Amino acid sequence: MKQTTNKAAGKLCALRRMHKDLINIMPLQTGGILTNAAREALVEFGDGYSVCDFCLGNLQDITNPPVREFVHDLLPQFLGCDVATITCGAREGIFMVMHSLTRPGDSIVVDGNRHYSSIVAAERAGLNVIEVPHSGYPEFKIDINEYTPLIEKHNPKLILLTYPDGNYGNLPDATRLGKIAQKYDIPYILNGAYAVGRMPVNIQDIGADFIVGSGHKSMASAGPSGVLGMKKRWEQVVLRKSLAYSNKQVELLGCTLRGAPLVTLMASFPYVAERVQHWDGQVSKAQWFSAELEKLGFKQLGEKPHRHDLLHFETPMLYDVSKRVRERGYFLYKELKERGIWGLQPGLTKAFKVSTFSADKEQLSFVIDSFKDILHKYG
Amino acid sequence: MKQTTNKAAGKLCALRRMHKDLINIMPLQTGGILTNAAREALVEFGDGYSVCDFCLGNLQDITNPPVREFVHDLLPQFLGCDVATITCGAREGIFMVMHSLTRPGDSIVVDGNRHYSSIVAAERAGLNVIEVPHSGYPEFKIDINEYTPLIEKHNPKLILLTYPDGNYGNLPDATRLGKIAQKYDIPYILNGAYAVGRMPVNIQDIGADFIVGSGHKSMASAGPSGVLGMKKRWEQVVLRKSLAYSNKQVELLGCTLRGAPLVTLMASFPYVAERVQHWDGQVSKAQWFSAELEKLGFKQLGEKPHRHDLLHFETPMLYDVSKRVRERGYFLYKELKERGIWGLQPGLTKAFKVSTFSADKEQLSFVIDSFKDILHKYG
Repeated sequence: MKQTTNKAAGKLCALRRMHKDLINIMPLQTGGILTNAAREALVEFGDGYSVCDFCLGNLQDITNPPVREFVHDLLPQFLGCDVATITCGAREGIFMVMHSLTRPGDSIVVDGNRHYSSIVAAERAGLNVIEVPHSGYPEFKIDINEYTPLIEKHNPKLILLTYPDGNYGNLPDATRLGKIAQKYDIPYILNGAYAVGRMPVNIQDIGADFIVGSGHKSMASAGPSGVLGMKKRWEQVVLRKSLAYSNKQVELLGCTLRGAPLVTLMASFPYVAERVQHWDGQVSKAQWFSAELEKLGFKQLGEKPHRHDLLHFETPMLYDVSKRVRERGYFLYKELKERGIWGLQPGLTKAFKVSTFSADKEQLSFVIDSFKDILHKYG
Repeated sequence: MKQTTNKAAGKLCALRRMHKDLINIMPLQTGGILTNAAREALVEFGDGYSVCDFCLGNLQDITNPPVREFVHDLLPQFLGCDVATITCGAREGIFMVMHSLTRPGDSIVVDGNRHYSSIVAAERAGLNVIEVPHSGYPEFKIDINEYTPLIEKHNPKLILLTYPDGNYGNLPDATRLGKIAQKYDIPYILNGAYAVGRMPVNIQDIGADFIVGSGHKSMASAGPSGVLGMKKRWEQVVLRKSLAYSNKQVELLGCTLRGAPLVTLMASFPYVAERVQHWDGQVSKAQWFSAELEKLGFKQLGEKPHRHDLLHFETPMLYDVSKRVRERGYFLYKELKERGIWGLQPGLTKAFKVSTFSADKEQLSFVIDSFKDILHKYG
């Protein structure tokens, strides 16, 4: 290889993560921090394909490590569904469902707070997407009743709800949509990337046909990893077997999450299954944190009172500071980093998202005090 | 959760791998053993989504860790292509190409030694697959000239060649197929899951349009991970951007390999780029090993002289033993495991595949001696 390549390659030998041991309030990351068991499993099964030592033809049937028990017993019970599978992430699960249930040119109805990847997955599947608008500033709520006229007008093959959305952390009335889906007999998929592994969620109670979860976002797992649960009636559609290879699922290309992230998902599962039982405490912690920041003049967007750890704040006073300091918008990231806090996207000051999920109340008090200090310093 | 679930969940807390420190001759695993740098990176970036600390909208443009340099500079140079991307594995890359270049009902021509996942990917894309037959027992070779009449008859939208195949480790004349592909102007994809990261392979020299590689199979990486390289002319087709999100690629669902396996791919890359330069030594080691086992009465299938570390042996004398011992076919796995050797699929004795890639000559001598011992013990 050329000299330039050697130089570039040299950078790769010692990859370090700058934010590793800081207080983490980064919404994408607070639910994905590994347990110690997962960290050990990651090293134990780090070598590529080492999870497949005892494969007899299908990843999800491996008994050592106990993939079969995890996928076929624990996950369905946890998600309140009949059948579950592992995936490379929530979006991959959504695409699998779209690709199995629809044909190019079909329509689907989704909430206006949907993740960008739901739109991209629909584009990959050739679908026409109709969005249920949110209520706009400042709450950005989804009124589930607005699905009805769009269903009647567009005859969608699938309806999707993001629960909660990743922008505001709003929790729309998923159960109400379950009733509508049943009335019109339209398959209903719940994107629980920020729910599954954080809070109790059961699609049988909700009345959804499918649910996707994200290992790296909310199940204390390495990325890429995810789960997909469904009602029994969809098993032969979404998890259909290959005509040529009767033990291989077509939408999984045979075997999907074949590697280290799977064992983190499994190793963290007992902890994750337990932590969702303490969701009330997470909600009250988020509400307290939000109220404290509002006392500083920050304005929380999204639903109030808030029912999720994902919080979005408008902070015009910090934006004002950014306009008159040398570092511009980066001053806030730097000030927080110097205090051992990581989570606001570098450069943002006008509005930003945080998550209170992984930090405890003492750490969050320190975050609140840090914002106070910063406001005072530049006030 | 129920009592039964708690019991099952308990098993997940301490996942251990039985074969971790044994001499590894398992074909799926010998190319995926992590470097120390990769093992450190795995822990450093184990927490879900920690690779995305400095994301500005697209995973492949992240500069810390240096994903951008890896994907846009190092990989294309390594693969001999214009444009590269990371993927969740070789099969995922093959499906991306099929899904982008074909429509349901189209035909493709593939070699008869193709991996099962190429058939499943084609089924997912709704394609009609025509296979170029291999020469049958004992060499199972692909005659590239046999693509021509099938191309003329079926007008395929894509042709695929497995290089080498995973069953016999045969290396068909990929460059000859490059000339045929150019003559008929048909896109040509090379499945290099057992080539990229083991041996030098350059698709510009070969004349292929696409190449896929596997991180967990051959690039010293955790699974799931892979690479896809292509000619510039296909960038706007396979890596087309979303109409709604101009920095997100549709076939990658925005971001693909978002997590720990990616950093192992990067951290191992300098080592992998170097090791392919020593491929001649690997080939002579494989040939020596094969010759030694043939002295014991084993019969090597596939091409001779062999040009790859994947080896397939027929061993009727071991099969005979299995018929008269208590453990049946498992006796061989147990005998080898007791000697610190892992790699033959438990239960197999009649014929099996091994790989000489990761074991050194001294270790392989021990493997040969172990087979001798076992034959003697049961002889």
